[in-house]
Amino acid sequence: MTDKTIFFGEFLGTMLLLLLGNGVVAGVVLAKSKAKDAGWTVITFGWGFAVLAGAYASAPLSGAHLNPAVTIGIAIQTGQWSKVPLYLSAQLLGAIVGAVLCWLAYLGQFRANKDEVLGVFATGPEIRNTAQNLLTEIIATFVLVFVILATGQTKGLAVSGTGVLIVALLVVGIGMSLGGPTGYAINPARDLGPRIAHAILPIPGKGGSDWGYAWIPVVGPLIGGALAGLVDIAVF
Amino acid sequence: MTDKTIFFGEFLGTMLLLLLGNGVVAGVVLAKSKAKDAGWTVITFGWGFAVLAGAYASAPLSGAHLNPAVTIGIAIQTGQWSKVPLYLSAQLLGAIVGAVLCWLAYLGQFRANKDEVLGVFATGPEIRNTAQNLLTEIIATFVLVFVILATGQTKGLAVSGTGVLIVALLVVGIGMSLGGPTGYAINPARDLGPRIAHAILPIPGKGGSDWGYAWIPVVGPLIGGALAGLVDIAVF
Amino acid sequence: MTDKTIFFGEFLGTMLLLLLGNGVVAGVVLAKSKAKDAGWTVITFGWGFAVLAGAYASAPLSGAHLNPAVTIGIAIQTGQWSKVPLYLSAQLLGAIVGAVLCWLAYLGQFRANKDEVLGVFATGPEIRNTAQNLLTEIIATFVLVFVILATGQTKGLAVSGTGVLIVALLVVGIGMSLGGPTGYAINPARDLGPRIAHAILPIPGKGGSDWGYAWIPVVGPLIGGALAGLVDIAVF
Amino acid sequence: MTDKTIFFGEFLGTMLLLLLGNGVVAGVVLAKSKAKDAGWTVITFGWGFAVLAGAYASAPLSGAHLNPAVTIGIAIQTGQWSKVPLYLSAQLLGAIVGAVLCWLAYLGQFRANKDEVLGVFATGPEIRNTAQNLLTEIIATFVLVFVILATGQTKGLAVSGTGVLIVALLVVGIGMSLGGPTGYAINPARDLGPRIAHAILPIPGKGGSDWGYAWIPVVGPLIGGALAGLVDIAVF
Repeated sequence: MTDKTIFFGEFLGTMLLLLLGNGVVAGVVLAKSKAKDAGWTVITFGWGFAVLAGAYASAPLSGAHLNPAVTIGIAIQTGQWSKVPLYLSAQLLGAIVGAVLCWLAYLGQFRANKDEVLGVFATGPEIRNTAQNLLTEIIATFVLVFVILATGQTKGLAVSGTGVLIVALLVVGIGMSLGGPTGYAINPARDLGPRIAHAILPIPGKGGSDWGYAWIPVVGPLIGGALAGLVDIAVF
Repeated sequence: MTDKTIFFGEFLGTMLLLLLGNGVVAGVVLAKSKAKDAGWTVITFGWGFAVLAGAYASAPLSGAHLNPAVTIGIAIQTGQWSKVPLYLSAQLLGAIVGAVLCWLAYLGQFRANKDEVLGVFATGPEIRNTAQNLLTEIIATFVLVFVILATGQTKGLAVSGTGVLIVALLVVGIGMSLGGPTGYAINPARDLGPRIAHAILPIPGKGGSDWGYAWIPVVGPLIGGALAGLVDIAVF
Repeated sequence: MTDKTIFFGEFLGTMLLLLLGNGVVAGVVLAKSKAKDAGWTVITFGWGFAVLAGAYASAPLSGAHLNPAVTIGIAIQTGQWSKVPLYLSAQLLGAIVGAVLCWLAYLGQFRANKDEVLGVFATGPEIRNTAQNLLTEIIATFVLVFVILATGQTKGLAVSGTGVLIVALLVVGIGMSLGGPTGYAINPARDLGPRIAHAILPIPGKGGSDWGYAWIPVVGPLIGGALAGLVDIAVF
Repeated sequence: MTDKTIFFGEFLGTMLLLLLGNGVVAGVVLAKSKAKDAGWTVITFGWGFAVLAGAYASAPLSGAHLNPAVTIGIAIQTGQWSKVPLYLSAQLLGAIVGAVLCWLAYLGQFRANKDEVLGVFATGPEIRNTAQNLLTEIIATFVLVFVILATGQTKGLAVSGTGVLIVALLVVGIGMSLGGPTGYAINPARDLGPRIAHAILPIPGKGGSDWGYAWIPVVGPLIGGALAGLVDIAVF
């Protein structure tokens, strides 16, 4: 993998992740959508299949991190840090562009909308409590990154290409099981990128971007991913 | 693959795709059906498994395109155009026959029906806006074809036969995430074939076939598929 | 595979298929069940995972037919008929025992029940029309058996063990898409075995076993499976 | 596999299983959760993907039993009993810690809660009847362990790593089909560990731990797993 393929892989993969991930929330939340009120089953499977799309698109190019918490976890596991800035910048840029593409795909719905729409772009807690929200994101991201690292050690999974499917279904599961309190960012780029897009895009009545909360879905997942890397070193 | 196996593969595969795809809409929409009002989860999984059925049936015969947008994307990627007319004609014919078979499977329900039924056969937008509807179909089809092309580059996926499963789940995801505005045709044959069947079949109170909209789910997906082929060449 | 492994494989596999398949209907339909009113998504996935369980349990023993329509389709495809009676008798016996085990697992619910319960055991049409019901079962079973036969021709699927997963998801899809009119027997043993169990078991207020309809989910699937075998010979 | 990797594999794997498994119930049951009232589809898929997470995390370390009933079934099948106490103690410890982590992830929701919460931690029957509840757990666990043992005999599944995915989906299916009467413990550690956590943790208004029922989801699954081991020896 060259710097060029890494950049395009992470950019395109994270772009697809956010296009589809924000898309499923838009479809369920916004008026004049065929998916209106389709519920938590569709939200969680939709985000999982967004991972599926982004990860298969980028696997042969960049190894499909699509998530700074995964990149950090792998860097701690392998001790190789030189490509980390490249991965992170491509992920954030891709996340912003993906959120913009989602807005374009649902442009008519956004224009007809009259409610706040931050929930389509970024996560927010049901009960606002800094320590608690941080802890939930740490735990949920630990699960994600630890299982990804362990899956990479499972004979036959990586080479067969089935590993990506497993991770996509894992994300469905984390959403179903640990998404209740904070909406499971579990990925700093997934939350920060679309929040930037929300701040910039001209959407009528869009409401504030809740920057006071924005650091939690960045710092929490980074801590969770780092912990997963450390535990992986300890047990494998 | 010979011309004969390509024709039968694409014909039978697209026939199964539309039989099951239109079938899940019929089951959820028509009265006197056990799936009545089963909702968006069933619609999106149903279409994805329709792809699963059609694609596994045709993979060893024709490579399972089942979609002119996929055929165009692959032709741009590979530079080989000679078989394109064969693929496209078999796909359209299969789609028409599949829609007729769905009508036969739900014949009692269609006869008892008194509402317009175009929605069982072809797609239509929630908000009618030519540029907007076209853009949504372009974006959604780009996702489909770009991930298919990238998956073909992923080591182990094609030979293991798992690649088809991935594409089927990808279609579930595109439906959940980007189906809200237009009903995700993302396939000219999937939309045009059943629309022709709707125009021909004797269904009481079936309503019009909405030919004014019919070019959008043909042109949009073709543009999206072509773009995916071009981006694939650029990044791989 | 010896006669002994074939018998035990088909008996145990079809037993598991009906234990879980009838079980999901019992869970959704009967009172005092945590799955009460869980809907069509659970019914269709439940039946698909019932196939998953039965087929993985029996694959190394008998090749996991679990369905006379599959056995007939394979016999037509291969021209080998000598083991057909063994397969069919083991399937029917397993289906009866599976339905009895389901009744034992839900015994408290059945005892508390006051409604007719034939729907837990066997299929029935939403609109009763012999030709129409037969045609729906023929079409749905053709899809099942034709895709199974084609999947067996797909490089890598059979040997990797992934083929069974594909068939399980295919059954989910057929249920979602073509289950609306008749409840998708698509398997003579699946319908006849539990209907026999329903006729025998002492369930309060169980209602009649609807023997007038019982031949349709036997004959329809056999015709559909045979057609699939013939088309497979023609195109492969 | 050394004693150390077995311990950490089973401890971490069962911890993840209960963190996510209890988590999905917490998300659906507790107030102030985005998954509130998401229903049986989410519960059953959530538990299945909890198995997916725990099993992929532990497969390369301990072989991913995560369940005393599976450990007993394998011991009977193979005749090797020396590691059984190590497996069982790690599983129980992991289950307790997983339940505590779930409580931490949903701490705000638990603090705001005013209802009994035992259902988030451990199983309970819809109709309380010792023989009946025991029988349901025996049957459901037999299905789980017998299919796991048979899957281990299926060519290609174990080495490809796909076997774990199959078991995860099998658990979804068992929940959908046989979870109605007792909530499908099918795993002594899954039920006893969280019940201990429930007894210890300081949760306002948490209610009793129902110790009178606690032996059934321990003994029932152990009998079911043992039966599966015996039948496996008989037929393979």
